[in-house]
Amino acid sequence: MNVFERVTVIGVGLIGGSLGMAIRARGLAREVVGVTRVESSIPLALARRAIDRGTADPVAGVRGADLVVLATPPEQVVSLAQRVRSNLRPEAIVTDVASVKTEIVRAAAGLLPQGGAVFVGGHPMAGNEGQGITAADPDLFEQAAYLLTPTPQTPRTAVERLEELARALGAVPVVMTAEEHDDSVAMVSHLPYLVAAALMRAAVQAGPVAGPAFLGATRVAGSPVALWAQICRLNREPIGNALRAFREELARLEAEIEDGGGLDDLLEAARRARLQLGAATREKGSK
Amino acid sequence: MNVFERVTVIGVGLIGGSLGMAIRARGLAREVVGVTRVESSIPLALARRAIDRGTADPVAGVRGADLVVLATPPEQVVSLAQRVRSNLRPEAIVTDVASVKTEIVRAAAGLLPQGGAVFVGGHPMAGNEGQGITAADPDLFEQAAYLLTPTPQTPRTAVERLEELARALGAVPVVMTAEEHDDSVAMVSHLPYLVAAALMRAAVQAGPVAGPAFLGATRVAGSPVALWAQICRLNREPIGNALRAFREELARLEAEIEDGGGLDDLLEAARRARLQLGAATREKGSK
Repeated sequence: MNVFERVTVIGVGLIGGSLGMAIRARGLAREVVGVTRVESSIPLALARRAIDRGTADPVAGVRGADLVVLATPPEQVVSLAQRVRSNLRPEAIVTDVASVKTEIVRAAAGLLPQGGAVFVGGHPMAGNEGQGITAADPDLFEQAAYLLTPTPQTPRTAVERLEELARALGAVPVVMTAEEHDDSVAMVSHLPYLVAAALMRAAVQAGPVAGPAFLGATRVAGSPVALWAQICRLNREPIGNALRAFREELARLEAEIEDGGGLDDLLEAARRARLQLGAATREKGSK
Repeated sequence: MNVFERVTVIGVGLIGGSLGMAIRARGLAREVVGVTRVESSIPLALARRAIDRGTADPVAGVRGADLVVLATPPEQVVSLAQRVRSNLRPEAIVTDVASVKTEIVRAAAGLLPQGGAVFVGGHPMAGNEGQGITAADPDLFEQAAYLLTPTPQTPRTAVERLEELARALGAVPVVMTAEEHDDSVAMVSHLPYLVAAALMRAAVQAGPVAGPAFLGATRVAGSPVALWAQICRLNREPIGNALRAFREELARLEAEIEDGGGLDDLLEAARRARLQLGAATREKGSK
């Protein structure tokens, strides 16, 4: 069942490519148009069944689309929206996949004034250790949270159609403000990345003696740096708050190790929260 | 090919049970005797093929064994060694599986004076999220580091036989001093656990919006608290050093997020170290 007629995905990498594959495999649109940075990437995107046709021209690529997904690195979302806006259908919905929202949503609102195409910030919380179209996976969004960050001015129907798309992808749509998003994602995504990088840097002399806890805790530190560095700069303030809360909890644990009494209770509360989280996210044993 | 004649495993839980299963499945001993806390646990250990026969009496259990594995929680290792020592064969090797070594090795050296049974500290760096014999797995030690911590007085042949056992289990034996062990394991195991618990406690209000990075970083916080709390108390000083090194690295990253220039380089060094570690530990994609 089509949720959209023509979907244009700009940036056919891990997320954009997975979206295209999932939309095509599940028959959620009549056509998926892919916009790649260079023409030479189009054959691979076609071969992976991520798109029906491709172009390297974003302005031409959005023509006639009723959904445009800006699946580029965060720092390129706003400039791309600016570049394509004059060619958008007035009833088009434009969304992105960046893991930082406040600045992007604010800028996009200025670019797309009311009455025409609508921007709704989006962030599917999915990924793997790969990158690019070769790591794309049509099941990437299964059971993932798909965050949507409308503003008070966003037409309700636009949000509802994206929620419908998220559900059709197997994901769980969650609506929140851009500010709530950035606070929450700083805590559950950006902070764990920085912690993993710091753990890895601190342990670098420890050599290859590593157990499952260390491998699990640091896995994300192996992912490409450029994107994370962008995110850290764009979401600096919420990340600072998350770091502060984390440091306080760590200091509390350390104090209890020193003088003993309350350590088990603090750890037990963390354990219960982790088990609840695993149940709530229907965590897969393999991830 | 038998590495030992009779192996007695005291404590047939996740690690002890997996050891028994692996030794039996691979034919590494003529007989595996299991010592459980209560008689009623013996049938399950037999059914899981972890032991050939069982007893709840450790003193009787070690009789005739040429290898005794104290696979109990760390705080019980020394008192158990004391309890069984008068019944050990003089040529027996006694080892443990605790993830803290300095105190245990020092105490055991006093208990087993030279000329009789020999204690060699051991620590297979393996585990999963389960606990007890029901989570035991004969392949648990495959490609895991198996740390051994002899003292200058330990006979070389005793170390060599445990190295041979480790290799026969599919693990990689690594010999180091007890102090090196405790520093290294504080960094790669105890610190990541505390960090996971602190992340979980800090994020508890963020709700079920969690991506793969957070789930991976906090998984170990869901494991049973009692054992970790023991470890934290027993290895307090090395853990304090590891916490300090980690905090410094985290502060360095935060400072670079604030003023920008060096962030990518710091993160890139962490990324390269993580990729090397994954290769060195022949990390499985599924873990």
